[in-house]
Amino acid sequence: MPQDRIFKLAGIAIDAVLFTIKEGVLNVLLIKRDNEPYRGSRALPGGFMQGEETAEKAAARILREKAGVRGIYTEQLYTFSDLHRDPRGRVVSVAYFALVSQDQINFKGSDLQAPALFQLGEVGKLAFDHRAILDYALGRLRAKLEYTNVAYSLLGPKFTLTQLQQTYEIILGRKLDKRNFRKKYLSLGLIEATKEHERGGRRRPALLYRFKAHELAQLKKFF
Amino acid sequence: MPQDRIFKLAGIAIDAVLFTIKEGVLNVLLIKRDNEPYRGSRALPGGFMQGEETAEKAAARILREKAGVRGIYTEQLYTFSDLHRDPRGRVVSVAYFALVSQDQINFKGSDLQAPALFQLGEVGKLAFDHRAILDYALGRLRAKLEYTNVAYSLLGPKFTLTQLQQTYEIILGRKLDKRNFRKKYLSLGLIEATKEHERGGRRRPALLYRFKAHELAQLKKFF
Repeated sequence: MPQDRIFKLAGIAIDAVLFTIKEGVLNVLLIKRDNEPYRGSRALPGGFMQGEETAEKAAARILREKAGVRGIYTEQLYTFSDLHRDPRGRVVSVAYFALVSQDQINFKGSDLQAPALFQLGEVGKLAFDHRAILDYALGRLRAKLEYTNVAYSLLGPKFTLTQLQQTYEIILGRKLDKRNFRKKYLSLGLIEATKEHERGGRRRPALLYRFKAHELAQLKKFF
Repeated sequence: MPQDRIFKLAGIAIDAVLFTIKEGVLNVLLIKRDNEPYRGSRALPGGFMQGEETAEKAAARILREKAGVRGIYTEQLYTFSDLHRDPRGRVVSVAYFALVSQDQINFKGSDLQAPALFQLGEVGKLAFDHRAILDYALGRLRAKLEYTNVAYSLLGPKFTLTQLQQTYEIILGRKLDKRNFRKKYLSLGLIEATKEHERGGRRRPALLYRFKAHELAQLKKFF
């Protein structure tokens, strides 16, 4: 390649942090590496950017191949470029983070690398710098939850106010005051009541709500 | 390189969007390209990531070389990977955005590529996809101003409330109500009054304020 006289070349990896809530616990998608380096270790799903795809398309491909999800909330997280993050040579990782409700994940067709969901508390060391990437993604998710409507991407199309509050509590890792949460959240105008109620054998079935929009918006302009 | 059997290699460019406020107008640092491609065109300051530096170090180097600034507010903006963004071949750009008060910029020693400040309204087409990168950075800056204290990085160490409000107005591109702005801003607890007043021949010299902290914080936790 004539280019390497002008500039150093590097490999560009795309790694994806897919979060979902499963049985009341925040989970992340991990694979098991079937090649060196770190063969047999758990890692974020990822791969090299191919010649004819952008980083965004590569991230979408990885999420489709490993979790059967399409068109879900995805944003670029950060590009990690530590010198020795990959023993094969200079590899920069463009990391993405994605959010989805658990019922959209479909592992059929993704038999390679044993993709599976792991509770965040059970994730130990990961290959490469993937543990640091995961921790960075969790920080972004928590911050984003505070000033955007991104919770829509983790919930199903209809949910109770209790389920909404639980989503916040699971991610922020702390209990929130029920009355205060409901009052504030309803004042934001992001969600609206449907005419349906939760199904099940409960004494007083709770009203179901939905997000008015399924695209990212800041919760509130301060000025 | 043995790597190119495993993965496609790409060049990694680092481009920096440095904003400052000059004479009441938002300005951006641009250089004039002295090499092909786009020789003679205005562009964001940038360059290829060198073999022994991370993207963060490369961004700091570029800002130091082109504007004489060190240790200023800098964050990774986005990694741009369109297939044909660089006619030389596959080059991915890791873009940074940085904010500084104008008095910290020093062009001495940066005679290459004629770095200079340009009013945002006077920036036309730029080399590569740099116009799109600049527009993206402006969006980030505006959003960030709404939910963080990042304005500290554009102001001098001491400022009047009028200067603070003007900073917001210049970036958001709209007038704000004076009483409402002051009441809200003071309630955030981010700034404190000094014992000094503005110098000059004004009838009633205004009190000077300072930010309590010079590191990024979210303005308000909503929940």
